[in-house]
Amino acid sequence: MLSSRFAEGVAANLGALVAQPIAYGYKSQQKSGGGNHLPGTVSLDGASLIGVARNLVKSFLSQGMRHLVFINGHFENYQFLYEGIDLALDELGIKPGDHKSVLLLSYWDFVSPDTLTQLYPAGFPGWEVEHGGVLETSFMLHLEPARVALERLVNGPAAVLPRFDRLPVVPSRTPASGCLSSAAGSSAAKGELLYSQIVADLTTDLACELKSTPVDSSDS
Amino acid sequence: MLSSRFAEGVAANLGALVAQPIAYGYKSQQKSGGGNHLPGTVSLDGASLIGVARNLVKSFLSQGMRHLVFINGHFENYQFLYEGIDLALDELGIKPGDHKSVLLLSYWDFVSPDTLTQLYPAGFPGWEVEHGGVLETSFMLHLEPARVALERLVNGPAAVLPRFDRLPVVPSRTPASGCLSSAAGSSAAKGELLYSQIVADLTTDLACELKSTPVDSSDS
Amino acid sequence: MLSSRFAEGVAANLGALVAQPIAYGYKSQQKSGGGNHLPGTVSLDGASLIGVARNLVKSFLSQGMRHLVFINGHFENYQFLYEGIDLALDELGIKPGDHKSVLLLSYWDFVSPDTLTQLYPAGFPGWEVEHGGVLETSFMLHLEPARVALERLVNGPAAVLPRFDRLPVVPSRTPASGCLSSAAGSSAAKGELLYSQIVADLTTDLACELKSTPVDSSDS
Amino acid sequence: MLSSRFAEGVAANLGALVAQPIAYGYKSQQKSGGGNHLPGTVSLDGASLIGVARNLVKSFLSQGMRHLVFINGHFENYQFLYEGIDLALDELGIKPGDHKSVLLLSYWDFVSPDTLTQLYPAGFPGWEVEHGGVLETSFMLHLEPARVALERLVNGPAAVLPRFDRLPVVPSRTPASGCLSSAAGSSAAKGELLYSQIVADLTTDLACELKSTPVDSSDS
Amino acid sequence: MLSSRFAEGVAANLGALVAQPIAYGYKSQQKSGGGNHLPGTVSLDGASLIGVARNLVKSFLSQGMRHLVFINGHFENYQFLYEGIDLALDELGIKPGDHKSVLLLSYWDFVSPDTLTQLYPAGFPGWEVEHGGVLETSFMLHLEPARVALERLVNGPAAVLPRFDRLPVVPSRTPASGCLSSAAGSSAAKGELLYSQIVADLTTDLACELKSTPVDSSDS
Amino acid sequence: MLSSRFAEGVAANLGALVAQPIAYGYKSQQKSGGGNHLPGTVSLDGASLIGVARNLVKSFLSQGMRHLVFINGHFENYQFLYEGIDLALDELGIKPGDHKSVLLLSYWDFVSPDTLTQLYPAGFPGWEVEHGGVLETSFMLHLEPARVALERLVNGPAAVLPRFDRLPVVPSRTPASGCLSSAAGSSAAKGELLYSQIVADLTTDLACELKSTPVDSSDS
Repeated sequence: MLSSRFAEGVAANLGALVAQPIAYGYKSQQKSGGGNHLPGTVSLDGASLIGVARNLVKSFLSQGMRHLVFINGHFENYQFLYEGIDLALDELGIKPGDHKSVLLLSYWDFVSPDTLTQLYPAGFPGWEVEHGGVLETSFMLHLEPARVALERLVNGPAAVLPRFDRLPVVPSRTPASGCLSSAAGSSAAKGELLYSQIVADLTTDLACELKSTPVDSSDS
Repeated sequence: MLSSRFAEGVAANLGALVAQPIAYGYKSQQKSGGGNHLPGTVSLDGASLIGVARNLVKSFLSQGMRHLVFINGHFENYQFLYEGIDLALDELGIKPGDHKSVLLLSYWDFVSPDTLTQLYPAGFPGWEVEHGGVLETSFMLHLEPARVALERLVNGPAAVLPRFDRLPVVPSRTPASGCLSSAAGSSAAKGELLYSQIVADLTTDLACELKSTPVDSSDS
Repeated sequence: MLSSRFAEGVAANLGALVAQPIAYGYKSQQKSGGGNHLPGTVSLDGASLIGVARNLVKSFLSQGMRHLVFINGHFENYQFLYEGIDLALDELGIKPGDHKSVLLLSYWDFVSPDTLTQLYPAGFPGWEVEHGGVLETSFMLHLEPARVALERLVNGPAAVLPRFDRLPVVPSRTPASGCLSSAAGSSAAKGELLYSQIVADLTTDLACELKSTPVDSSDS
Repeated sequence: MLSSRFAEGVAANLGALVAQPIAYGYKSQQKSGGGNHLPGTVSLDGASLIGVARNLVKSFLSQGMRHLVFINGHFENYQFLYEGIDLALDELGIKPGDHKSVLLLSYWDFVSPDTLTQLYPAGFPGWEVEHGGVLETSFMLHLEPARVALERLVNGPAAVLPRFDRLPVVPSRTPASGCLSSAAGSSAAKGELLYSQIVADLTTDLACELKSTPVDSSDS
Repeated sequence: MLSSRFAEGVAANLGALVAQPIAYGYKSQQKSGGGNHLPGTVSLDGASLIGVARNLVKSFLSQGMRHLVFINGHFENYQFLYEGIDLALDELGIKPGDHKSVLLLSYWDFVSPDTLTQLYPAGFPGWEVEHGGVLETSFMLHLEPARVALERLVNGPAAVLPRFDRLPVVPSRTPASGCLSSAAGSSAAKGELLYSQIVADLTTDLACELKSTPVDSSDS
Repeated sequence: MLSSRFAEGVAANLGALVAQPIAYGYKSQQKSGGGNHLPGTVSLDGASLIGVARNLVKSFLSQGMRHLVFINGHFENYQFLYEGIDLALDELGIKPGDHKSVLLLSYWDFVSPDTLTQLYPAGFPGWEVEHGGVLETSFMLHLEPARVALERLVNGPAAVLPRFDRLPVVPSRTPASGCLSSAAGSSAAKGELLYSQIVADLTTDLACELKSTPVDSSDS
């Protein structure tokens, strides 16, 4: 949902189109703050997500679009989207130097160091555990405040996860709240800061990269 | 989009949940009123759609849900959704007699003969060409009137397509409007009639089939 | 088996070749009058049938053939054959306007309204349930009378199946005879009428579509 | 076609059923006497043939059959049939010691040394090049004499192929006749000897292996 | 190669076995310091790497091994190895709480903050660009000094790559040296420090996680 | 391992490069002297091995190499390597007559009749059962004597296996030693004879076939 909002913000600035979002993503992994053991988690396997990305790239680029931007909002998706894009370009025969391209990015990579400092005065816990924490909660307070139940916020220390993935997962390693880091300190103002900074940076970078030509944008 | 509205209508009656829609479907086929040669058509291949359906069924049923309902709104999807469901049940080891099940349906199969007679006083042209015609246009006039540009409606005779599929497609066989049958005669009242009759029939049939137990609903 | 006979009839008229039939098809579905719960049903999954169709199209068209016709005799196969053909043409780089093509059809789509009226004086029950009923039984009485045990014919009312597919299947919904509609009223004369009308229509349509050039025909 | 005849011969002895043949096989390889460069060669890729074999094994064994016998007549198929069988048994959970089994064999492995000596008085050229030579021609003269045009027989020395496969193929390495070894010396009598010896050995071995229980037989 | 050395070091401490390495990995990505446009880069696509990992996990765990450790040395592999492991466990029916497990890790996640400070007195450039820089060069100087041509070392500023992946790649964004960060400041002593610290931490963590039971180790 | 040694021997003669070996192969089959029931056997399924071969061919030939040689050392791999190579060439659009090629061979096909006579004075038992017997043991005594425990050698008669593959396997048909033929009579001298004859023949054949142009060699 956050990805769609970023796509809309950037597209409005660039005169681009936003495609339907890809509603389902790759399996959530415990080490990145989720896990398929959490109720309500519905996900695709690697082959299906690769297939969806591959098909969308082939469809959009065959229909005459020149640039396609994937805005990823789920860490685990990234490599599978990359693979789908790469396979599609190989099948379409698009090579370095061609005038068509696909950009793939995760929105959190556009959070600037300044913004991070403002958001986490006590120090950033790292992207590994920041999931459902200050960042996402602040976004929601800014964009969709009615959906946030702040009084149910859990204020615990950041989870300490091992430096490996263990499969099958050890469910007890995920805090009862389902969040690896505390959302305490979230605010709509922080969300607004984050949102406007990311949209501004995305706009600048994409406009520069794509030479101000019309951009067609797809988000996941 | 229409599928989501049916899912919401039925779920409200049955106390069921509506999952995120599957935004992209199988290749549109000329014989059923579309075609990938039409601009703006973005689609999945068979393997990807089978994979998405298979993954969703596995995810939902593994999470404790008992019944899942797919409401299909795109003719060409049906067999691939069926295959995905069948593969998932095979992998999950769910057999006849088990207490878990998946229902798959296309909403137009729930249009009653009475309703058809009221909608098409001059005779129903058949489902093969009714696509973007009276049925879908009336639905949109009822549910999303702001999105319909009725003054641009094309009133031609129903297209006569061959009794075979030819690949590659012969683009000139699709009328310039992109519609196989005329939308003339569409109205919000007809849309309301259709919508309420279908939702009522779906509610009755699903409640009866699933023995009034809570239903979890997913639409595509 | 019926598909092969149609292919032979049409090919004799057009001077085309008939390839080996594809002996195994997609899973039989209860709603279309079959079901993998019936003893003796052996079937392919979607991926395998797509693969077989894709390989045959690639092989035949790479070997210099210009036109290939698939005559389908099993409703559930259709979309998977379509997908296999579409993938093959994409891999071969054959596009609209090229001089090579593949036609896909189901033989029952060539039964004319006149013929239907003659066959079903009391009204046609619909293709959904006509399977192992008057149509197929009449064909067999005409083409292979020795294989039909007419005295074992079951004369019941047409089955009433729900408007959805339920998986796993509810075996008791298939009549004990395995047939959704009665074969009573079948005769060799009706089979001959059907066969000659379909072959004539197929011949006319294919000759017209393929401009009287030699046709290479494959059936399933 | 030869495989079907062996299957029929053995099944008559054992009271087993013969299933529909798998009409299409894996790509013919130059080194084993064929090649996809020869006109009229239509073939499946590895994944499709694996899929067909896997589906047939799953279907037959799920339907209550205990033993399934694949009689292979095309060298290149063997490993893909093996893989399909192995995957199916893994999915069905059938393990060593279970009462269900699948046998896979190539009919030429049942030609006895005595028979070879009688057939090739001047010495056997080896299975690598014996393809369309004395063996297959004699079979055809015995079983389907009307299809053999003996006057067009080419009597050349056995082809000398390199000890490696080169891809893409070097078409000029296949003799103009398409046959790697000469069919000179073929006769219906040799075909009858071969056929009866192989059927006898197959019957003995299968009866012994399957403990005289009814055998269900599928050939390719 | 580095992964194998870590595996050997840890296995010697734990009494575990080291399996054959997986010699080929996923496509190198420009953003993580490589790219398939660099000569000598040979790689697997996602499906193949997933398949290899899935097969190895199934083979090892079916053969009676209880724990398997994948030591990843190529950033881009991680998600595909994860997917292969997850699919294998699903097929084997291994669930949370079972006594079998697979651990997946990248060796650089075990570099401690202290070690980083010692290695990069001027500040760590970040894992995104540290590839062929001080870290890998120091390792090689310690473990395989004969293979390092230090006099050809390029001392440039760390590369500044965009915050998105662009496909097809823009080759000119990779520095001529092929390295995103300078290897200046590398030494065998730093390599020894790194190697011994990582092996020590891996040993401690794995021993703790696997409760000192014998560990079977596979590296990639 | 033996394949790597052949590759090195031939490459030294031809000035070719040896790539990393493919460490894992297809399932070992009982009839060819192995079986996945033997402890320590780790293997890939058909799809994964096809994928690995396909990817390597695409990578190497896309990087500018002209000729690629696969030296197979495991009978069961052959058809899957062939399929992977064939698919890659199809995707790359390389056709007969192009200046790029891939050679695939098994090293035992280069053992000359003279050598066989010297190795097996009492008669060659046939390639079907020669696995872990005189041939491989002699190679090891020549190339890696420290790894051979000759005192544990089992001297029994060659195993008699049925002329079919039975799945699931009947483990008791594999001799307790795991070897189908006796290694008695192995010696380093025989290994040296074998090794030098095969390398010489491979060198001659490859040099001739590839017209003395530089050869890039990959082994499995």
